[in-house]
Amino acid sequence: MTIRRLQPHGRLSGAVIHGNTVYLAGQVADDPTQNTEAQTADVLHQIDALLAEAGTDKSHLLFCQVFLADIADVAAMNRAWDAWYDRANPPGRATVEAKLVDPKWRVEITGIAALP
Amino acid sequence: MTIRRLQPHGRLSGAVIHGNTVYLAGQVADDPTQNTEAQTADVLHQIDALLAEAGTDKSHLLFCQVFLADIADVAAMNRAWDAWYDRANPPGRATVEAKLVDPKWRVEITGIAALP
Amino acid sequence: MTIRRLQPHGRLSGAVIHGNTVYLAGQVADDPTQNTEAQTADVLHQIDALLAEAGTDKSHLLFCQVFLADIADVAAMNRAWDAWYDRANPPGRATVEAKLVDPKWRVEITGIAALP
Repeated sequence: MTIRRLQPHGRLSGAVIHGNTVYLAGQVADDPTQNTEAQTADVLHQIDALLAEAGTDKSHLLFCQVFLADIADVAAMNRAWDAWYDRANPPGRATVEAKLVDPKWRVEITGIAALP
Repeated sequence: MTIRRLQPHGRLSGAVIHGNTVYLAGQVADDPTQNTEAQTADVLHQIDALLAEAGTDKSHLLFCQVFLADIADVAAMNRAWDAWYDRANPPGRATVEAKLVDPKWRVEITGIAALP
Repeated sequence: MTIRRLQPHGRLSGAVIHGNTVYLAGQVADDPTQNTEAQTADVLHQIDALLAEAGTDKSHLLFCQVFLADIADVAAMNRAWDAWYDRANPPGRATVEAKLVDPKWRVEITGIAALP
């Protein structure tokens, strides 16, 4: 099966496609001064863009791992998630707290998706 | 390849099957008042149920990610794990500490499995 | 698709191969008295060995999850990473802080790779 790498930035790629499966690098907000809900919306927008570049979309998401800098922000993260996820095709998900590389980042999300 | 979603509960699915691969959402104990060993046994029982619904079983597990609310509970988690895992077919695994969404949850486990 | 398990050590396998995909268990340093940069180099060396045993190499890595015991060590981890990763084929990656099972471990890395 072929491997295709999207948005390689030095030491990592934004996404890697293997056969019919897309692996997303951890996505963080472009503007880390925003609150958790806005950062999550920003991250999900970046996931949409990576999936589009890969030739797929959020209806083909299989799993997402959500890391929150403060687990107390789960409701704020879910507000952005609920405004975004495909009602007919929710992925599996796990949400845990973890300190992120930049202390201003409130949320980081990785995911695995299918090509259509 | 086809996608099949099991146990969709609003914003996430309990498991998503893509081709021959099953992605499990983070599983937590139904009864969070139990100790870590009992919660782990409960989680592994739920994983068995999801794998059965997907048409596979624990002998086809490829990888598990274990999140413990307190890494000091690793021995308690392993007691339940050791009573459960398939001796002939252990999956890859990683175990780290992370705060979970409900402070009463002591353990959350995600996994990837194959269909037979 | 076939499943092949490498380096089974009791309750987990070092890697599991499903079809053309390799899932690596969380790798930690053999010598946990080393600093984070040296532990990372040690972990990446073990990943090389597992990938070789699977019949592939780091140019086929799809995704890595890096757990650091102290997120302040990200620069030290990246020094070892930058000396190692395939410039033409960077994987997706996510790096977060998490307490690890042995308090002397500074870094643990899981990964998913493709067979050629």
